[in-house]
Amino acid sequence: MTHSKQAAREFARQNREQFLTQLKEFVSIPSVSTDPDCKPDMSRAAAWVAAQLKTLGIEKVDILPTTGHPIVYGEWLGAPGKPTVLVYGHYDVQPADPLELWHSAPFSPEVRGENLYGRGASDMKGQVMAVLNALRAVKETSGSFPVNLKFLIEGEEEIGSPSLPKFLEQYRNQLQADFCLNPDSGMIGAEHPTITYGLRGIMTFELRISGPKSDLHSGIYGGVVHNPAVALAELIAGMHDANGRVTLPGFYDDVVPISEAEHADFARLPLDEAYYLAQTGVPALWGEPEYLPDERVGARPTLEVNGLLSGFTGTGFKTVLPAQAMAKLSCRLVPNQNPAKIAAGLRQYLEQHAPPTIRWELQAFGGSPASISDVNQPGVKALSQALEAVWGTRPFFKREGGSVPVVAQMQSLLGIESVITGFGLPDDNLHAPNEKLHLPTWYRGIEAMVEFLFNIGHS
Amino acid sequence: MTHSKQAAREFARQNREQFLTQLKEFVSIPSVSTDPDCKPDMSRAAAWVAAQLKTLGIEKVDILPTTGHPIVYGEWLGAPGKPTVLVYGHYDVQPADPLELWHSAPFSPEVRGENLYGRGASDMKGQVMAVLNALRAVKETSGSFPVNLKFLIEGEEEIGSPSLPKFLEQYRNQLQADFCLNPDSGMIGAEHPTITYGLRGIMTFELRISGPKSDLHSGIYGGVVHNPAVALAELIAGMHDANGRVTLPGFYDDVVPISEAEHADFARLPLDEAYYLAQTGVPALWGEPEYLPDERVGARPTLEVNGLLSGFTGTGFKTVLPAQAMAKLSCRLVPNQNPAKIAAGLRQYLEQHAPPTIRWELQAFGGSPASISDVNQPGVKALSQALEAVWGTRPFFKREGGSVPVVAQMQSLLGIESVITGFGLPDDNLHAPNEKLHLPTWYRGIEAMVEFLFNIGHS
Repeated sequence: MTHSKQAAREFARQNREQFLTQLKEFVSIPSVSTDPDCKPDMSRAAAWVAAQLKTLGIEKVDILPTTGHPIVYGEWLGAPGKPTVLVYGHYDVQPADPLELWHSAPFSPEVRGENLYGRGASDMKGQVMAVLNALRAVKETSGSFPVNLKFLIEGEEEIGSPSLPKFLEQYRNQLQADFCLNPDSGMIGAEHPTITYGLRGIMTFELRISGPKSDLHSGIYGGVVHNPAVALAELIAGMHDANGRVTLPGFYDDVVPISEAEHADFARLPLDEAYYLAQTGVPALWGEPEYLPDERVGARPTLEVNGLLSGFTGTGFKTVLPAQAMAKLSCRLVPNQNPAKIAAGLRQYLEQHAPPTIRWELQAFGGSPASISDVNQPGVKALSQALEAVWGTRPFFKREGGSVPVVAQMQSLLGIESVITGFGLPDDNLHAPNEKLHLPTWYRGIEAMVEFLFNIGHS
Repeated sequence: MTHSKQAAREFARQNREQFLTQLKEFVSIPSVSTDPDCKPDMSRAAAWVAAQLKTLGIEKVDILPTTGHPIVYGEWLGAPGKPTVLVYGHYDVQPADPLELWHSAPFSPEVRGENLYGRGASDMKGQVMAVLNALRAVKETSGSFPVNLKFLIEGEEEIGSPSLPKFLEQYRNQLQADFCLNPDSGMIGAEHPTITYGLRGIMTFELRISGPKSDLHSGIYGGVVHNPAVALAELIAGMHDANGRVTLPGFYDDVVPISEAEHADFARLPLDEAYYLAQTGVPALWGEPEYLPDERVGARPTLEVNGLLSGFTGTGFKTVLPAQAMAKLSCRLVPNQNPAKIAAGLRQYLEQHAPPTIRWELQAFGGSPASISDVNQPGVKALSQALEAVWGTRPFFKREGGSVPVVAQMQSLLGIESVITGFGLPDDNLHAPNEKLHLPTWYRGIEAMVEFLFNIGHS
């Protein structure tokens, strides 16, 4: 096995240029799942992934329709007696706006220094390709794969995977595997390979406040009308107390306290105040003072405003008293919190606090619970050894603030655990302008995936 | 004189169709002063007004440049021994957005029922044309004018008249007049001719909150970063107390209390709670409970949010933790309040309340103080008689919530009082979609201006 591993890693090192060219091709498809105008690009991206699987020699490849964007399914069962790995990924990306802040066009990927810039380079087209490139290196050097493989590459992760639960139920038998490999997470630093064993859940909303029947002249009516933008600000301001705690009814009721052991793990991670200050550029950190910064992000629920819009926002000034004001809100959830209960809490807060001077409407979008994986499963051990083999250091185990709904759904609907990793870095500008992928780390990641496949095949 | 008056009013009645055609031509020029793209249209609108003055036989007509949009000046001094009236107006209009809420294109004026719809139809192209049409009726029937005339039609009223103070100082001697006729106000109802003797001042701002150096992933950083949209909401929420009073330091220090007599005048106006509920469509009125609704609007200062923008505001959802949040703010001011002092109060509030977790920047745009005119001047009496002659009812005297900075500037820089009227109605949708002008009221207004000109000439 050692010889095959080394040959495959050598192949991966020799073919970096080709891997990069292919990744640029993938990133150049503007597969923005939330944008109706991108529907043809979504089909193009799905077809591109399916074609990649076919060139790997995956026998069965299907592009399966959903009520939203299609799911690419693949299957290779040529290693009887060996474990079956279900590779999860998503080919969709976040919107690229605000476009004017990008230094190169988001869908014209460009290498500058050690990084590849482009929307989706890190989240997660680069991660999907790290796995497929590792499989290519193994196939080209060994002629086969050391494990059985299934692939589920969806197109709706960035909009909350609305079609996935139904899909998982429908294809429950076909999707059975020993575990799921999910590379949609990242590393805490280029020299710190990381295994994520916990993910936060999410619940998203749009809150619309309306007052007057149309925009009014702020001089003629200002003083008797509760300005919807002011009313919205007042409602939002009441959602946190002075210590950054969320005030929604029952918000913390089901939160599992952080144990002494977990606290020790969090304290060991190099994610302290200085780290977050450097990563974000904020003048001072914020949040619940009794928790470590990485605990606030990894193990505490939050409520964020993701967007605000009201009245006149162009250049210059317009003395309008706006008819409406809108906020996009989301909550990140930790294990044991129920998204529907959180939505009910927000609605109850609004019923209690919205004044009679305005009207409000709350739309709840998709939600998913948080998840914690079993760190003792064989897949996690194989990954830990693989990362150590490439980086020469034991990986960090962390709980992450982001949400990968599919991990919770794989647990509840398929009964399988996920092995979560990824080779993105904290400064990759995920969901923001100038998203990038650190190429030296990515190349190491490909080799780590080679190690991982052989470790699993050998286990 | 009675004969000349009647002849001129008869002419005005006979030429309504032609007056309407001309007004539609004027309204169809998109002279949005705040929009840099409309600069050519601003020149076109100024030239259109100048041409109108020339066809009236105004001898001296100049389009005078400023650092912003040009001012149209006109002069006719052919009535020696008679009073001189300075006619003020503005040819610029508010932006038309949100365009999708208009039932007809804002710059393609359209008559539906008794109204002409189009941006600027009421504010104030219709009002400027009411005066010019009255002058045309007088000229065509008498061959001359009963008073000396000066015209100052500016192009920056909707952006706070930034070039006007310098212009008034520069042309101080040339602009001398017995009083200024300013038809940039309105009526409280189609059967209620109105003379406005008080106007609120204004001070406008843009407040920008910034936190992280770029938009962040709300999962990876949510919990340690003070969300700028939340911080902005918290700052805005603190600007009013539970009774709708503004909390900025010193905000009410210089406000002149409403006298018993003024309170009686406000109580007489048909502007009660039911009126404001019907006009605005809000579920309940808001504001300082110890004041009548029309007192809150006419004689109390306010703070409004005119616009809000942060993060992702498109269709769908984006789990961004925004780098910035912006609010457009404005204060309506009452007599004796100093705009600069109000700006200092807002700055002091922010210094006291902005948390160390964010950065803030406050930009103050133009401001102007409130004004109260002398209701006993001959111009006001001539207007009162004119309105009564046409409507058959004594006009209401009111203080209005809107701001006409030029009135205060005419007082302070030229030393002349303004006679303030206008033939718009409260439901004209000023500064909002579907702005309209009630044509039967406008036609009466033209006749009232005929009466007014003869009253002044006879005084």
